[in-house]
Amino acid sequence: MEQLGVTPVTVYAFNGNNAAEKQDFLATEEPLEIRIEYGPDHQRVIKSLSVTMRTPGADADLVRGFLFTEGIIRHPAELQTVRVVDALPGSQEAGNIVLAQLDQAATFDMQHLDRHFYTTSSCGVCGKTSIDAVKMAGNCSLVKSPSRTLNPDIIYTLSDTLRAAQDTFTLTGGLHAAALFDFSGCLLAIREDVGRHNALDKLIGHCTWNNTIPMHDSILLLSGRASFELLQKAAMAGIAVVCAVGAPSSLAVATADAFGITLVGFLREKRFNLYTRHGGLQ
Amino acid sequence: MEQLGVTPVTVYAFNGNNAAEKQDFLATEEPLEIRIEYGPDHQRVIKSLSVTMRTPGADADLVRGFLFTEGIIRHPAELQTVRVVDALPGSQEAGNIVLAQLDQAATFDMQHLDRHFYTTSSCGVCGKTSIDAVKMAGNCSLVKSPSRTLNPDIIYTLSDTLRAAQDTFTLTGGLHAAALFDFSGCLLAIREDVGRHNALDKLIGHCTWNNTIPMHDSILLLSGRASFELLQKAAMAGIAVVCAVGAPSSLAVATADAFGITLVGFLREKRFNLYTRHGGLQ
Repeated sequence: MEQLGVTPVTVYAFNGNNAAEKQDFLATEEPLEIRIEYGPDHQRVIKSLSVTMRTPGADADLVRGFLFTEGIIRHPAELQTVRVVDALPGSQEAGNIVLAQLDQAATFDMQHLDRHFYTTSSCGVCGKTSIDAVKMAGNCSLVKSPSRTLNPDIIYTLSDTLRAAQDTFTLTGGLHAAALFDFSGCLLAIREDVGRHNALDKLIGHCTWNNTIPMHDSILLLSGRASFELLQKAAMAGIAVVCAVGAPSSLAVATADAFGITLVGFLREKRFNLYTRHGGLQ
Repeated sequence: MEQLGVTPVTVYAFNGNNAAEKQDFLATEEPLEIRIEYGPDHQRVIKSLSVTMRTPGADADLVRGFLFTEGIIRHPAELQTVRVVDALPGSQEAGNIVLAQLDQAATFDMQHLDRHFYTTSSCGVCGKTSIDAVKMAGNCSLVKSPSRTLNPDIIYTLSDTLRAAQDTFTLTGGLHAAALFDFSGCLLAIREDVGRHNALDKLIGHCTWNNTIPMHDSILLLSGRASFELLQKAAMAGIAVVCAVGAPSSLAVATADAFGITLVGFLREKRFNLYTRHGGLQ
């Protein structure tokens, strides 16, 4: 089955102490670079505007909505065309670069673009290059393997421990949590934030400076879904086992695989899906 | 009750057709600007590195984790101190700017910072200035009021309609959705993405270019939580009613209030919380 925005995957579905191989689907996550062409007819300029991790599909709508809701264009008429740029036809980047051509009368001002955009990498726009960039930044290609094996029964205890410790969430219902456990299921630290990447940065900031056990012998639990950005941070911190209560994206699974991280998703009661098997789990 | 990261709020708790005033708590959302000081002793430089929307608390951990997981420092010893900068003591920005001082031997290279950081606004770092920036970008301070009133019974139907239409989510469990309805509860359009801001941009991009009814007579439904960023985009598009299945943040409520947007949260079965009452709802 081929459907835009969906990536097939083979998972090991754990139910208690039984595991069965199963075909499943991931939400596809790939970078999209938005380039903008503007200026009077005799002096057109093309600039890279932003890179966002998105699910492929409706990309022209995404670009139109982004330009409009970020105030880059004030009216639909200011945008002439939105089209995919085939920088390198057939390459892995194909379809991940979009050019928005503004009308020459558009009031676009590059100087006002300092508010909050992602700037772009020069190293390409596809899942593979995103992973390579993390490898370069982290100066390594694999996290250390855990020195112990992990029992599924320990994993089943993590969510209950997290819920009991999540005090701000209980009050507001509005926070993501990231928590670190040892291989016996003991909670080492928990941090909460409206942004899931912030909750993880807070946790890693605390543990890297204060932790008494090595990160490759710890389990990271995420209260929601697992995206590329979260696996990137786990890889940089050298965490070998990541468990998410929600679904992982395609690029999260690819990143876990590339760094030798054991990735668990859909952790509920006595069930979870294992997406990558890199040791750590019995 | 005063607790860091939590903002008290008065909501109207709807249950069927009854509504009762109730005290509740929101997850606090405020911008944090990270500045970095680096270079040899005789030539120290301070640069603004990023602005992120975060829940106040454990800010030093957040900065340490961010610098480490983004590869700006490779080792804890490269970071000397992290401290709050009181740019304007007593101002609304107090506590929202943090300075990270790198060791002079740190291998930090500003040239390698082009990967994916937010650049900062010059207009200040607090909730109020964030809202003001949206007003400036959108060139208006209020969205148009709806031309009709909205019945709570219509709101109760939205989630079921959304779920029935969310085909990729059903396959993967891993996508956020944003959907637009008219005031009779008819679904106009739905878009999905791994990023909630992308799902909304796709929806607004589609509807602003193709929609047949005015945005201020439409209802936006978000499948998850409501953050500042999502309310910002709704305000830019002129959407007058926003409903979220999950919790809103403090800055989402303040933004809805500032733009005259009716904001509903925790929409479940026959219940929801109304956070701002700006017409639109009977």
